[in-house]
Amino acid sequence: MKEIRIFAPGTVANVACGFDVMGFALDSPGDEMVLRTIPEKTVRITKVDGFNLPLEAAKNVAGVALLSLLNEVKEMVGFEVEIYKKIKPGSGIGSSAASSAGAVVAANKLLGEPFSKTDLARFAMEGERLASGTAHADNVAPAIFGGFTLVRSYQPLDIISIDTPDELYATVIHPQIEVKTSDAREILKRNVLLKDAIRQWGNVGGLVAGLMKSDYNLISRSLEDAIVEPIRSILIPAFQEVKLKSKEAGALGGGISGSGPSIFMLSRGEETAQRVKSIMAEIYDKVGIDYDIHLSKVNKEGVKVVNGR
Amino acid sequence: MKEIRIFAPGTVANVACGFDVMGFALDSPGDEMVLRTIPEKTVRITKVDGFNLPLEAAKNVAGVALLSLLNEVKEMVGFEVEIYKKIKPGSGIGSSAASSAGAVVAANKLLGEPFSKTDLARFAMEGERLASGTAHADNVAPAIFGGFTLVRSYQPLDIISIDTPDELYATVIHPQIEVKTSDAREILKRNVLLKDAIRQWGNVGGLVAGLMKSDYNLISRSLEDAIVEPIRSILIPAFQEVKLKSKEAGALGGGISGSGPSIFMLSRGEETAQRVKSIMAEIYDKVGIDYDIHLSKVNKEGVKVVNGR
Repeated sequence: MKEIRIFAPGTVANVACGFDVMGFALDSPGDEMVLRTIPEKTVRITKVDGFNLPLEAAKNVAGVALLSLLNEVKEMVGFEVEIYKKIKPGSGIGSSAASSAGAVVAANKLLGEPFSKTDLARFAMEGERLASGTAHADNVAPAIFGGFTLVRSYQPLDIISIDTPDELYATVIHPQIEVKTSDAREILKRNVLLKDAIRQWGNVGGLVAGLMKSDYNLISRSLEDAIVEPIRSILIPAFQEVKLKSKEAGALGGGISGSGPSIFMLSRGEETAQRVKSIMAEIYDKVGIDYDIHLSKVNKEGVKVVNGR
Repeated sequence: MKEIRIFAPGTVANVACGFDVMGFALDSPGDEMVLRTIPEKTVRITKVDGFNLPLEAAKNVAGVALLSLLNEVKEMVGFEVEIYKKIKPGSGIGSSAASSAGAVVAANKLLGEPFSKTDLARFAMEGERLASGTAHADNVAPAIFGGFTLVRSYQPLDIISIDTPDELYATVIHPQIEVKTSDAREILKRNVLLKDAIRQWGNVGGLVAGLMKSDYNLISRSLEDAIVEPIRSILIPAFQEVKLKSKEAGALGGGISGSGPSIFMLSRGEETAQRVKSIMAEIYDKVGIDYDIHLSKVNKEGVKVVNGR
């Protein structure tokens, strides 16, 4: 294969109680990317469509991720990259992770898959380091593995695929305000109460068990964040109302997507997710803040090949 | 049924990363108890064999648990109780929980099972309140539900059964020193670092996933406690050596059983668990502290009926 076109999904990181460890992939929105092998050990970004992002490889998250991958390739090979970006940067649904993850999954296919998914996550994390200052994996992991993922540990990197129930849909609203990941991180406290932490790990255990048992009620009960949401949600207008009314409309639960400002809600079945979408839109129409809104089944595959030749 | 004899198992609470939320049941050691219905709304403990424990119902954990259950029974009925105690009080393998859990499971059988397992845990927790000052559920839950359990939440009480792999064995050593639950609790810090808490809930997610997938390697990687063990293990002689050498002998991992002083290690298969047993014994022989040592398959049933009539 000399050329490949892939779809790289948006992702929701943190997932309420799963702060810094859990995430899941969406079916939409997502970027498309075209990669071609070239006979030089370099990365050339020839096109970025949709948003104004750097073409210089060392300043582009996809470029950085690919350079990190090429560091571990012996052959004289490199990549030409076109990025068709649909996920807005700064939306809180893993825009940079989609580019990084999409790039390395595509590159790995072109090279005959020499790398494991965990290797690919390690390369893609270098893109995240460029984007946010920390090489976190909670968006790149679900983008690469698909479905729900748990980043159990960073040293060594240990990413666990968590089975995803069949009828799980996400509704994500992105209010057009800016919350920088670095700011969202700075307002967190360095210390937390042991009792809150215990509640949180009880919920993480419950969420993992609920997903693996397809127990939607348990998933719902476990979607609670005693630690981060109470602090970060003050940055997001109408957060509590969106959450409360979505749950009244039948959503299982939800929270802040990544470091915000997007809010995600999970529902059992598309019909409920549609109702949640209407309610979210109604609330933000009333508040008078522009928004994008997405409804998507949880994507079990992660990055998908569109075509290759 | 007028009379029932049950086996009430010892249990290991906390399970490394799962502080205050996880636990599992043993096949041995365990107590036996005989309960008989009587036509008065009272609890009479007629015999305690093995250890010197109060016969007065209000001062005996089994008595307190049964009185709590009787509070929710309309019929004019009560229980006569004989306790054949084999689990040493203060050993850190749920001695009080076995009595409380055994009593209420037996009573429920005698009454035709009007109560759910979660109800029974709620009653048994009153026994724990008498024993340790807090109505914790991390021992009574596995004693009642069997296998591994997760206490996701206390308000409301939400206990989740976690599937248990078939080949999981526990080795537990009980050094003959005293560590009071209340002391073990007091030395804990009220605050923990957010980064340690994140590591802990990553491991809790990993442990739940590992158990449910029968992924012994993942179980092993997840059996890590970044928060409580570093503090409490200083109360237990040779703790680090026991843990290190047990893992060298093939154990998956382990930690402090409950609030100590017992140490548990989990192994895949009985043969490895036997090796771990020898090594634990050897270390404590060298240190010169007396000990009891137990090897048991993880008990998937919890309290078992021995016979009834």
